[in-house]
Amino acid sequence: MKTAPAPWVRLVALPPPTIKNNTADADRLVAELAKALPAKTVDIGFDLDLLRQLPALVRQSGYRLRCTLFRKRDRWILTGISGADDARTVAGLAVDLGTTRVVLRLIDLATGTALAEHAFDNPQAAVGPDVLARIHHAETPAGLRHLHALIINGLNGAIDSICRTAGLRPKDISAVTVAGNTCMTHLFLGLEPRWIIREPYIPVINRPGVLRASDLGLRVGPFGRVLVFPNIGSYFGGDLIAGILFSGLHQREDTAILVDVGTNAEVVLGNRDWLIGCAGAAGPALESGVTRMGMLAGPGVVDRVSIDPATGAFDIHTIGDETPRGICGSGVIDLAAQLFLHGMIDIRGKLVPARCGDRLKIIGDIRHFVVVPAAQSASGGDLTISQADLDSLIRSKAAMYTILETLTMTVGTNLGDLNAFYVAGTFGCFINPRSAIAIGMLPDLPPERYVPIGNSSLEGAALVLTSASAIDEVDRIRDRITYLELNVNQDFMNRFSAAKFLPHTDVGRFPSVQPG
Amino acid sequence: MKTAPAPWVRLVALPPPTIKNNTADADRLVAELAKALPAKTVDIGFDLDLLRQLPALVRQSGYRLRCTLFRKRDRWILTGISGADDARTVAGLAVDLGTTRVVLRLIDLATGTALAEHAFDNPQAAVGPDVLARIHHAETPAGLRHLHALIINGLNGAIDSICRTAGLRPKDISAVTVAGNTCMTHLFLGLEPRWIIREPYIPVINRPGVLRASDLGLRVGPFGRVLVFPNIGSYFGGDLIAGILFSGLHQREDTAILVDVGTNAEVVLGNRDWLIGCAGAAGPALESGVTRMGMLAGPGVVDRVSIDPATGAFDIHTIGDETPRGICGSGVIDLAAQLFLHGMIDIRGKLVPARCGDRLKIIGDIRHFVVVPAAQSASGGDLTISQADLDSLIRSKAAMYTILETLTMTVGTNLGDLNAFYVAGTFGCFINPRSAIAIGMLPDLPPERYVPIGNSSLEGAALVLTSASAIDEVDRIRDRITYLELNVNQDFMNRFSAAKFLPHTDVGRFPSVQPG
Repeated sequence: MKTAPAPWVRLVALPPPTIKNNTADADRLVAELAKALPAKTVDIGFDLDLLRQLPALVRQSGYRLRCTLFRKRDRWILTGISGADDARTVAGLAVDLGTTRVVLRLIDLATGTALAEHAFDNPQAAVGPDVLARIHHAETPAGLRHLHALIINGLNGAIDSICRTAGLRPKDISAVTVAGNTCMTHLFLGLEPRWIIREPYIPVINRPGVLRASDLGLRVGPFGRVLVFPNIGSYFGGDLIAGILFSGLHQREDTAILVDVGTNAEVVLGNRDWLIGCAGAAGPALESGVTRMGMLAGPGVVDRVSIDPATGAFDIHTIGDETPRGICGSGVIDLAAQLFLHGMIDIRGKLVPARCGDRLKIIGDIRHFVVVPAAQSASGGDLTISQADLDSLIRSKAAMYTILETLTMTVGTNLGDLNAFYVAGTFGCFINPRSAIAIGMLPDLPPERYVPIGNSSLEGAALVLTSASAIDEVDRIRDRITYLELNVNQDFMNRFSAAKFLPHTDVGRFPSVQPG
Repeated sequence: MKTAPAPWVRLVALPPPTIKNNTADADRLVAELAKALPAKTVDIGFDLDLLRQLPALVRQSGYRLRCTLFRKRDRWILTGISGADDARTVAGLAVDLGTTRVVLRLIDLATGTALAEHAFDNPQAAVGPDVLARIHHAETPAGLRHLHALIINGLNGAIDSICRTAGLRPKDISAVTVAGNTCMTHLFLGLEPRWIIREPYIPVINRPGVLRASDLGLRVGPFGRVLVFPNIGSYFGGDLIAGILFSGLHQREDTAILVDVGTNAEVVLGNRDWLIGCAGAAGPALESGVTRMGMLAGPGVVDRVSIDPATGAFDIHTIGDETPRGICGSGVIDLAAQLFLHGMIDIRGKLVPARCGDRLKIIGDIRHFVVVPAAQSASGGDLTISQADLDSLIRSKAAMYTILETLTMTVGTNLGDLNAFYVAGTFGCFINPRSAIAIGMLPDLPPERYVPIGNSSLEGAALVLTSASAIDEVDRIRDRITYLELNVNQDFMNRFSAAKFLPHTDVGRFPSVQPG
C-alpha cells in the first residue's frame, strides 16, 4: 500500500514552566505532543514507570525531548522518552509468526529502514508439527503455558540475536507487530486455543489490539507495545490481514485477488469498496487437500522441471544447484504440468505407461514416475513421484480452483476479469504460473497478472512500523471483510469434480493450455 | 452532587456462537457490553490475564456473565468477570489520602452502599510530619521509594482490615479512588515531589487518571483500577477537586464558595458556569499563617468555649467531656471570639489586663490568659493561651479573610452575596460560624449559609464509586477551574492589614458583631 513516513519518533521542545504557566511536566509534554501528532485526538497514554523518569529528564535535557510513540485505536502511547540529543536508534520489530518458521525484521522507526532480518524454527514444533497437535498439547496440564513459554523464549532469543546483528540492544525496541494464523496468535498470547478446532470454531479474541510487551514476557523496551494482527475467525488469521495490507488489495479501484497457500488456502477477493474472504479448510472432503504440495524447500530440492519439446530430455533444477534429493511444491506443479503437456499423464492425472517409457516403475503395486534416476540423485536411489502423489496433487489443485471459482461466483465476478492475482508465501515466490495454469490449479490469466508478494505476513507487519497510516488500516481491513463460509454442498462438489480434470472438464476456460 | 446509580456491575447474556455467528468470545462480550453501557463508545479494554480466563468462563456459565467495569476517560475497562450467578460483593474503595491521616471507605459497587470505614495515621509521618519534611526525605537516596512503600504498605494493611470488617477479600475490590493533596498524590504514585516546593512549583503530573492497581503495588483484585484525582497545581490538590465534586458547587445556578482549611487554606468560588480557585500558601508573610490553629483534636481537648454574659463564668466543653488537657482550633476561635465580645482582648487582639482580672498571668515576659485553672486541668497546671498564640490567630484569620476577599473581588462578587459557604474538613465540622464571624475570620453571613461538608475529600472519592456521572465530572471540574495565583502585592497587604483587626477595620462589614 501507499505510505507516508511513520510518526513514531518525535522531537518536542516544551516551553519551560513559569509561575504563570505552571502546567505539570507530563501534561505539558502531552499538550506539545498533541500539537505535533497528525490526529485530532489528544489522548496520549504512558506507563507509570515512564512518568517516574520524566521530571529529572525534562530538566536535564533542557525541556527538549525525543519521544517514541505507538498507536492504540485512536490514541497514542508514549513508549519511550529521552533527551532530544539521544542518537541511539529507536527500533521496531516485525514478526511473521509461522507455524513452522518465525521470521523477524528489525526496523529503524525514525527512518523506516530495515536493519536486520532473522528467522528461526518455531520451537513449538517440538510439541507437534501442526496446529492440531499443538492445540491438543495445550489441553494437557500446563500445556498451554508450555507452548506460550516456548514461543516467547524463542522470540526473546531471536530478539537478542537480531539486535546483536544490528548493534542495538533489545531495550531499543519500542514497538513490535506480530502477524500469524489464529492458532499461533492464541498461543503467543497464552490464550486457550481449544475452541478453534471445535464446532462452531470460535477464537478467544478477534482483535487482540495493542498490548504491553512486558505483559507478554517479551524482553524489549520497558514501555514497549505489541500490535497483534486481528483475525476473522479460526481459519482466517492475522497473517492474511497483514498480507492484504501489504498487497494494497483493499485500496485498489479494480477487483483483484490474494491467495495465501500455507497450512490452508486462504483467499481474499475485493477492492477498495468491498472485500470477501474464505479459507480452504472446507470440510473432510478437502482436508489436507490443498496442503499436501510438499513444503520442504532447501538445498538439493527440485524446484523447477521442464521437458525439451524436441528431445524429450528432462531439465531438472535444484535449489543451490546441488545433487537432487527431493522435490518441493513448485517442482511437483512444474513436473505435473510438463507430464500433462507431454502426454505422460492423461486428463485424469493418471500416468500413461505408453508415454512414460522406462521412467515408469511399479513399486509395491503403485506406479511411480522416475523424476531423477538413481545415478544422478543424492541418495543413489531413484527420485520418484507416485500415482498417489499425483492423485493428491489433483485433489489439491481441484480444491484450489474450486475455492477460487466459488468465491468469484458468489460476488458475480469472472476469474478472467481479475487484473491482479497476488500470490503470497513461499508458494507464490517459487511457483511458475504457467505450470499452475497448465494443470488448472490457477485460472488462465496472462502470467504477468500473477504477482508473487513473498512473505506478505512479515511485510504487512513491517508496514505498520514504517507507514503513518497502516496501523489504522489494520482493523478497518478486518472489519470490512465479509467471511464466506464454504459450504461443501452438492454445487460445490460438482464444481470440485469438474476441476479434477487437467486442466478442467471445461477446457474452454484454459485456452492457453495445449497438451501434447 | 446529584447522582444516578453507578454502572460498574453489569449482567450480560451473550448469544451463544454458531457457525453463522462465529465472533470470538471477547469480541462477542464487548459487543454485548457496548449495548448495555450508557455511552456511545464501544472502546472496552481488558487485561491479558482476564482474557485468558474468558473462554472457560463463558462456557461454564452458559454465556451469562457478571462483568465489573470502570471508566478511563471515554472508554471502559473490564476489571472483573465471573458467572452471572456469582453472588459475591464487588467492592470499590474510596481513599482520602491525608498528610496526617488516611481514611478509607469500602463500598458495594452494585448498590452504592457503604460497607465499612477505616482510618490510619499516614505512616510517612515517621519520616516527617509535613509535606516539606517528606519532600526533603524523598531527595535522599532511596527516600522516594521508601515513602512510596510506606504509604502502599499502609494502604495494603488497611485494605486487609477493612475487608475483614466487611467480610470480604481484598481481591473483591475492583476499583479504588484516591483523593489527596498534590504531594501525597505524588508520593502515592512514586513520583518525584522535588519540584512541587521549588519555584515555579511544578508537579510531575496534573491528571494521573486511571492506573492499574498492580502497577502501584496495591493488593486488590488482579484487574483493579485506581482513579487518582487530578490537581490544579502544587498547592491545589485532588482532595479539593473531590470536595468540589461532593459539594455540588460546580452544578449550582447561584454562586457559592468552598473553603478547605487543612495544611493550607484552599478556596474555590463559582457555579455551574465558572469556577475560580486559589490556595493560601501565599508567600512568606502568610506562611503557616492559616495553619497554626492547632489540629490536635482528641479526648480532653477544649473544642467549645462560652462566657456567661451575666456572670462572666467560663463554660468549657471538652471532647469526650474529659478533664481539659489542651485546646484545638475550634476551641481557640471560640475563645478568641468570647474574649473579644467580652472586652478581654481589644480590636488588635491584645489582652486587656483590666478586663482579664486574675486570668491574666505573665509567664516569661509574655502575657498569658488562663483558659482552665490548674485545679481543673488534667495536667494540674494552668491551661493557657499566650499573647503570641493570639497574635498568630489574628494573622491566620486575617489571611483567611483576605484570601476570601481577594478571590471574590477578582470576579466582582461580594462575600455577602454568597448563598452557600461550604466548609470542608475537621475545621468545618467543629467550628462555630458565629465565633469565626465574631473575630472576622469568615464573612458576616447568616449562620445557616455555612454548610459543613465534613471529609469532602473522602466523600468525593466515594461519589465516583456510587454515581454514574461523577467520574466524568472529575476532569471537567479540574479543567474548568481558573487558578488565581495570589500575588502578595501592596493591595493584598493593605487588605491583610485591614483584616488584622477584630472583626475588621471596616466594622460596617460585620453588623452582627457587637463587642462588649
